[in-house]
Amino acid sequence: MTRVLLAAGTTETALIDGISAAGATPELMNHTPAADAEILAYGEPTGAPVTPVSPTGCPTPAAISRAVREVVGFDLTVVDAGLARPTMAPTVAFGTEPGADVRAEEAVPDAATIFDRAYEYGASLPDDELLIGETIPGGTTTALGVLTALGSPGGVSSSLPDNPLEQKHRVVETGLERSGLESGDCADEPLAAIRAVGDPVQATVAGISAGALESGIDVTLAGGTQMIAVVALLRRLGVDAPVSVATTSFVATEQGDTLEDVCTRLECDLTVTDPGFDARDHVSMERYCAGEAKEGVAMGGALSLVPDGRLEAVLDRIELVCDRLGVDGPDGSEEAVTPEDDHGP
Amino acid sequence: MTRVLLAAGTTETALIDGISAAGATPELMNHTPAADAEILAYGEPTGAPVTPVSPTGCPTPAAISRAVREVVGFDLTVVDAGLARPTMAPTVAFGTEPGADVRAEEAVPDAATIFDRAYEYGASLPDDELLIGETIPGGTTTALGVLTALGSPGGVSSSLPDNPLEQKHRVVETGLERSGLESGDCADEPLAAIRAVGDPVQATVAGISAGALESGIDVTLAGGTQMIAVVALLRRLGVDAPVSVATTSFVATEQGDTLEDVCTRLECDLTVTDPGFDARDHVSMERYCAGEAKEGVAMGGALSLVPDGRLEAVLDRIELVCDRLGVDGPDGSEEAVTPEDDHGP
Repeated sequence: MTRVLLAAGTTETALIDGISAAGATPELMNHTPAADAEILAYGEPTGAPVTPVSPTGCPTPAAISRAVREVVGFDLTVVDAGLARPTMAPTVAFGTEPGADVRAEEAVPDAATIFDRAYEYGASLPDDELLIGETIPGGTTTALGVLTALGSPGGVSSSLPDNPLEQKHRVVETGLERSGLESGDCADEPLAAIRAVGDPVQATVAGISAGALESGIDVTLAGGTQMIAVVALLRRLGVDAPVSVATTSFVATEQGDTLEDVCTRLECDLTVTDPGFDARDHVSMERYCAGEAKEGVAMGGALSLVPDGRLEAVLDRIELVCDRLGVDGPDGSEEAVTPEDDHGP
Repeated sequence: MTRVLLAAGTTETALIDGISAAGATPELMNHTPAADAEILAYGEPTGAPVTPVSPTGCPTPAAISRAVREVVGFDLTVVDAGLARPTMAPTVAFGTEPGADVRAEEAVPDAATIFDRAYEYGASLPDDELLIGETIPGGTTTALGVLTALGSPGGVSSSLPDNPLEQKHRVVETGLERSGLESGDCADEPLAAIRAVGDPVQATVAGISAGALESGIDVTLAGGTQMIAVVALLRRLGVDAPVSVATTSFVATEQGDTLEDVCTRLECDLTVTDPGFDARDHVSMERYCAGEAKEGVAMGGALSLVPDGRLEAVLDRIELVCDRLGVDGPDGSEEAVTPEDDHGP
């Protein structure tokens, strides 16, 4: 059975107003990765006080990946890559701390340590193949940070229909300045790029991938532009093994030819899956078709596991999972994002 | 898919000479639950420096449960119920500390806190049914401790072919004395029995079970006499919901009618599975037939999941898993218990 490995973490970068749609308020956003991990592990949040749903009723991609898991089945391993709030999902923990705002002097002070521990972990796994996903609100901004610090061109996506790209660039510029760096300064020192303007999930995914590839494990990075940033890191680190990226058609459509060009340049395979959400009129799928969320929590990779003839069953299951999560439209979603303070430990 | 929940912990009671066979040396025994969790999660130890194999070549029951998982499939959730050494298996953690020697004044000082947190966790799960197993060397001695403190008669099993019952009784008597207690003194205060002469796995399994049962989840305790002690705790705590115990024929044979009598008295269903190991001549199965290990790491419960007609496939898989673990006889086993200091984080 395929192992899906989910790196779940946080960066204070997400708390910058307008950067991320992965939560109704900054405080609730800090719970998003913990809740995503629980949804994937149990089918719903069990300890986290929130179901991650955007203000317009778009459910977290965890709901989609969970639906795939319930239909197709995959082994799940969540890695704590800097959670700011506790999760009741089982996690592998190396002691990784949440990331700071990229505008701080150092966004991930212990990037090298995280990478080393993650490398050892990845190298220790007996699997033949790994599919690695992420959940970290603000992760496309830190992806832009790393790509800029590496001097590696490439667009970044957004969980918002209107990508606040100018704001992201301003945030990254400020971050580089505060770190005393200019664009491209970290080309030969990729972990310094994470330390200055990245996030702990990048250090974790890069480390696990490098270790696993070194051990001969096939690695597919399940995600969009955040995973492209990880591939760029790996290539600069001298990891030249074949590596694949599996993402959704929502990211591919937004990114146009840029995504394919970047993958060609970085010598990584690209798999794009269109889940056919436009054939359904459930609010959850409508929000994805409207350009929200797009990807995350291994969604594109999970969808790539769906065999021919099983997509309809997955779409049916997405409706079930979303109903279970209380995602039934903008009204229901407001209820769903209310913290339930007395729920769980 | 059935969720198997594994409570993995340690008690210093296991370090008393002659008490447990769950490790080659006291130091290595502390790694056993961490290694068991990794074997169940990944198929082999990935971070733990040891494969738990007895000096005569009997592999940990984790190998059997893992083989069932590879053939039948089940969802795994490991709960850190007081691990003394780190595991690279994903775990749910409530901050539970390892248990002290039952001969100390208090074996589990925070038994009530562990129970409460575990209860909340159990109550939060959306599952319809749970199968709960344990891995804790020395656990039959702490089971005897709790049964004695509760004044609840019942035999206890052993991972050794010759059950060191007299020694266990002496240890428990000393433990009760040091706690200022006599047999039966905790009949009306079951968590005090754990605090005085129990272990943190008991507090965890009792708490999760009580919470899950309260939420209407069907609970099967996968284990032998250690799980009988948990049922005794639950009954004394006033939990009167139906609960089942699923164990192996190795425990049932050793315990004779006692086991059935105790289950009748505690009003719990008993399922006994005979895996038919006597039909094979692989060393691992021979050691079980000789009375070693007998049960643990949810083995009996996992075997109860094997549908008719799939047992041969499970036996084949046990051979594969054991070969992968380096269990191929007394010679191979000596190699397998050598610590690999440079392996894993």
